[in-house]
Amino acid sequence: MYCRKTLFQGFIYIYQIKYYFCDKFVCLLVILNVLKMRVKQMIMRFFPIFQWAKTYDAQAAVGDVIAGITIALTLIPQSIAYASLAGFPPQYGLYSSFIGPIIYAFIGTCAQINMGPAAILSLLTFSYTNGTNADFGILLTFFSGIVQLIAGIGQLGFLVEFISLPVVSGFTSAAAFLIGTSQVKDLLGIRFSSDTFLTTWKKLFLNLGHTRLNDTMLSVGCCTFLYIMKSLKDIKIKINTETERGRRNDFIMKKFLWFIGVARNATVVALATVTAYLVYEDINNPFLLTGPIVPGLPEIRPPPFETTVGNKTYTSGEMISHLGAGIIVVPLVALLGNIAVVKVFSKGKKIDATQEILAIGVCNLVSGFFQSMVVNGPFSRSAVSHASGVRTPGSGIYTGLLVIFTLLVLTPYFYFIPRAVLASVIVMAVVQMVDTAILKKLWKHSRLDLFTLTGTFVLSLCLGMEFGLICGVGIDAVLLLYYHSRPPLEVDYVDNGVLPAHFAIHPVGGLYFAGAERVRSKLVSLQHPAPATTDGEAAAQPTTAPRILVVYCDSLYRLDYTFMQSIRMLVLDWSQNGRVIWCDAKDTIKHQLKGVLTDPIFCERSDLKSHMIFNTAPKTTTA
Amino acid sequence: MYCRKTLFQGFIYIYQIKYYFCDKFVCLLVILNVLKMRVKQMIMRFFPIFQWAKTYDAQAAVGDVIAGITIALTLIPQSIAYASLAGFPPQYGLYSSFIGPIIYAFIGTCAQINMGPAAILSLLTFSYTNGTNADFGILLTFFSGIVQLIAGIGQLGFLVEFISLPVVSGFTSAAAFLIGTSQVKDLLGIRFSSDTFLTTWKKLFLNLGHTRLNDTMLSVGCCTFLYIMKSLKDIKIKINTETERGRRNDFIMKKFLWFIGVARNATVVALATVTAYLVYEDINNPFLLTGPIVPGLPEIRPPPFETTVGNKTYTSGEMISHLGAGIIVVPLVALLGNIAVVKVFSKGKKIDATQEILAIGVCNLVSGFFQSMVVNGPFSRSAVSHASGVRTPGSGIYTGLLVIFTLLVLTPYFYFIPRAVLASVIVMAVVQMVDTAILKKLWKHSRLDLFTLTGTFVLSLCLGMEFGLICGVGIDAVLLLYYHSRPPLEVDYVDNGVLPAHFAIHPVGGLYFAGAERVRSKLVSLQHPAPATTDGEAAAQPTTAPRILVVYCDSLYRLDYTFMQSIRMLVLDWSQNGRVIWCDAKDTIKHQLKGVLTDPIFCERSDLKSHMIFNTAPKTTTA
Repeated sequence: MYCRKTLFQGFIYIYQIKYYFCDKFVCLLVILNVLKMRVKQMIMRFFPIFQWAKTYDAQAAVGDVIAGITIALTLIPQSIAYASLAGFPPQYGLYSSFIGPIIYAFIGTCAQINMGPAAILSLLTFSYTNGTNADFGILLTFFSGIVQLIAGIGQLGFLVEFISLPVVSGFTSAAAFLIGTSQVKDLLGIRFSSDTFLTTWKKLFLNLGHTRLNDTMLSVGCCTFLYIMKSLKDIKIKINTETERGRRNDFIMKKFLWFIGVARNATVVALATVTAYLVYEDINNPFLLTGPIVPGLPEIRPPPFETTVGNKTYTSGEMISHLGAGIIVVPLVALLGNIAVVKVFSKGKKIDATQEILAIGVCNLVSGFFQSMVVNGPFSRSAVSHASGVRTPGSGIYTGLLVIFTLLVLTPYFYFIPRAVLASVIVMAVVQMVDTAILKKLWKHSRLDLFTLTGTFVLSLCLGMEFGLICGVGIDAVLLLYYHSRPPLEVDYVDNGVLPAHFAIHPVGGLYFAGAERVRSKLVSLQHPAPATTDGEAAAQPTTAPRILVVYCDSLYRLDYTFMQSIRMLVLDWSQNGRVIWCDAKDTIKHQLKGVLTDPIFCERSDLKSHMIFNTAPKTTTA
Repeated sequence: MYCRKTLFQGFIYIYQIKYYFCDKFVCLLVILNVLKMRVKQMIMRFFPIFQWAKTYDAQAAVGDVIAGITIALTLIPQSIAYASLAGFPPQYGLYSSFIGPIIYAFIGTCAQINMGPAAILSLLTFSYTNGTNADFGILLTFFSGIVQLIAGIGQLGFLVEFISLPVVSGFTSAAAFLIGTSQVKDLLGIRFSSDTFLTTWKKLFLNLGHTRLNDTMLSVGCCTFLYIMKSLKDIKIKINTETERGRRNDFIMKKFLWFIGVARNATVVALATVTAYLVYEDINNPFLLTGPIVPGLPEIRPPPFETTVGNKTYTSGEMISHLGAGIIVVPLVALLGNIAVVKVFSKGKKIDATQEILAIGVCNLVSGFFQSMVVNGPFSRSAVSHASGVRTPGSGIYTGLLVIFTLLVLTPYFYFIPRAVLASVIVMAVVQMVDTAILKKLWKHSRLDLFTLTGTFVLSLCLGMEFGLICGVGIDAVLLLYYHSRPPLEVDYVDNGVLPAHFAIHPVGGLYFAGAERVRSKLVSLQHPAPATTDGEAAAQPTTAPRILVVYCDSLYRLDYTFMQSIRMLVLDWSQNGRVIWCDAKDTIKHQLKGVLTDPIFCERSDLKSHMIFNTAPKTTTA
């Protein structure tokens, strides 16, 4: 808006200049200047790096470098593991881990975000590309980028708001269960093709006899190791404040423990790989290994619109129809994760959701040219990044460079990474995705939301992730309908001598179809309470004086058509012996009521009394 | 409730008696008496006939008899036509038209309702039983009764409230279009099997060459006749008030015209049948006729759980799975129609929706034993009944007896009813189902509802009726989400000298997930407005004094978990330089806020000022 205004002002300026000086050259200069300003503003908006780079100093650089290295140590083993989770050769995980962070450094707004493969996205990718090859995953990345860009340009980010936290929680927990399930076979050294939740467990029990002892022991060892390492950073070290030297030593010790904790994935993978290398035998190798990895950087080329799986060649149309709903669901889920992270780390600043959506869109779009899987910035790595003291999105450049170095130099050694250690890394990562604390909170403070959560969880597990997500939103919508079928509406009978005896209601917010009948049946049969007789008991017959209903509309904002019709019938019924007065109605409400009622009585609160007296030929409300 | 209370009081009474008199015989008598009372109350509640029969007099009987006969004249031709619409032999329409009204007379509450076949139900029945036989329709009737009884006993009537008027309108109009479409071939005398909306029109155009001139002319004649007859009752006759005799003549004339108008269906069918009989030839008969009708009353027998279509025998399981979603959709739509009618004619009385649902359930359940199609009380016949001066549901008995008479005596003549006249009756009946007036109203007063209506209409036509209905409810739910993503919330900056300068908001109704982010981003970046400098322009820098946000909660009724989390983040951000005060919060809201905020500041409105002063060591809200 601002840009447009500037441009407009510019043109008015030109117009004036033209009249005063009649000099076309000046006009051209001004136009060019305005255009230049506008382009500069757009560049500044789309490339936040130009904003933070101005104040980038050595201190910020140190923070970013440390965070960049720490993240790389988490990201590299995770990315290899997530590639296998998605069903692709391990190098694709690394391909997904360098271009995303580098691009995000230029166009991202949130320092903590680290673009790269994520557990849920890998799981979803697997479910949409199962039985095909990596080309399908790369095409999915490309289309995800396009869909996200469309969402960003079309300002569709608000759709993400329709997914409530209980739905996200149920969905994430279900994903964790599914991912964990898919890894159990690798933990035990059993090999078969994974499928849905239930069939995987069935196959597991059938194949339990093929469990390999070495792999299982390695898994147990790795998981225990990872658990202990993770606990290290929670150790409370009492900092010795007596001497300067003791204080420093304790501080270094604390940082060291924290670093080991954060680098635990890299450490455990390195240790296990060295072990596997040392005990390697050509025949009857004790561990199942990752196997050969294609070394070097990925070839830069357009996303594959044609591919061959086995004997079958897929055209672009067939590939797209095979990906199906994934083209919408995967980018949506990727967005969902990112926006949640940005919100958490926004710390009182207004977030630029549109820019974030555009950023993730560009990252995925470009990643599609680098043979990458779908990327986003999952919460786990963002938390590590935050704890490492990241200062700007620039840390992504350092992470990216480290991944490139890994691809160029370290890939030959990845042959020896045992599959069991990768499975351990995944399982220990997704365990923290299961949010059990929320259950207690919901039970105590918002019990109906518990229904949404469990519904989403169960349906996601049993009927598939995307179905669970959609059903979760559906359950939320039905609960909203349920809330609205019981609008908070207390009927007061006011007989205090100040005003004539009347009924008063004070509707709040909006009145929608779901509550129409309930409200009508509550109001239609209101009767004056029977006056108390001398002995304190109620008289047999209520009075039949005309009834007055005052509707205080100052908090009433919306009516829908169904409710308006309900009101029409109500007022018709009341008009037989009584009247309905609309007090302090807003103009929109007045307009709506005039549409359905023949002669509605509106008044201000100050003016109420004069409308409540009947002997002055009442303006009855009739149809 | 009332019954239970009586029973309970009775038992207390017994208990007292037992202690005072120690006489078990008295106890037994009292128990029996209480049980008798309770059974009597239940009977009175379930058979409203015992309530109105007490005051049934000659005047009421005259009204009911006239209405009963008028309805029969409308119902009989309609029922034969609707049977063909459902794809069944014509006698099934008559089978559906006598037991329903008679049963409803005993257990119904609404005098205007006439149980019998309806256009929409016949269309739905056709879509679920197409290609089978009438046994499927009868089983559907039986199951519809069971589903409706379950809905009545389980008090599930509120589910009907989730279907808004625009959805009903869109659904009904789509049904009218579908029904009209299915009749065009009979109007033109073409014969082929109907299918979906689009394929029917396609087949029509392909078969246009087979149009039969006689049938087409008959149709045009019948439709014109029906239209003119219908207009008769709208003729304004100026009642001559000068002489008593003139007044009476004009009154009789008016009533006569009205009666011809109402009996137009019967008249046109009778005239056309006589014509067809007179011009009948064995070969090359000029009109397509209804053909032989099985005479006599239907055999009373359990609903068919096994049937044979062609060579295939269906077991009960196969029949049920063939009916599929119809077992839920058909009874729901039947209920929907009835409840709408009861509401319209309730005239200020509270309606007993549960009793109505039970009544329609029993009617369908019993009808299943009389080889009937699904029945309900459609609006068109109720309006006729109302205009005929009906007094009690007892008029159904007279209607039922007339239908029985027809079945016993008149069926041989029905052979000659031309199909074109039946199609004309249906088409002229459904034309009035299309509600075009609502479009203008919605455009003027509730434009978003227009979206629901057109969505339901288009989806019902293109993808099937039940899908359209479900999607309509879905569109309503999404619109509700949309409303809630924009909660009405104005932020006021109050700096009037009475209280310290602060921001004030006044949320109303419920705050749900859809609006969480919008509200947060609106509130998070509030800044004190820059104080005006001496020359009236705003100063460059806004003041950095601590900010205060007062949330007036007196109209705030509900928070969901997502919104609570959003509040938690908001308050955390504000606590860095400011505070949030919750004024006049209800206990439920307080409880919820305490769950997410560490030390929320609650106060009464009178007490507000003392919480807004910062120098007295403010209780800041930190996590």
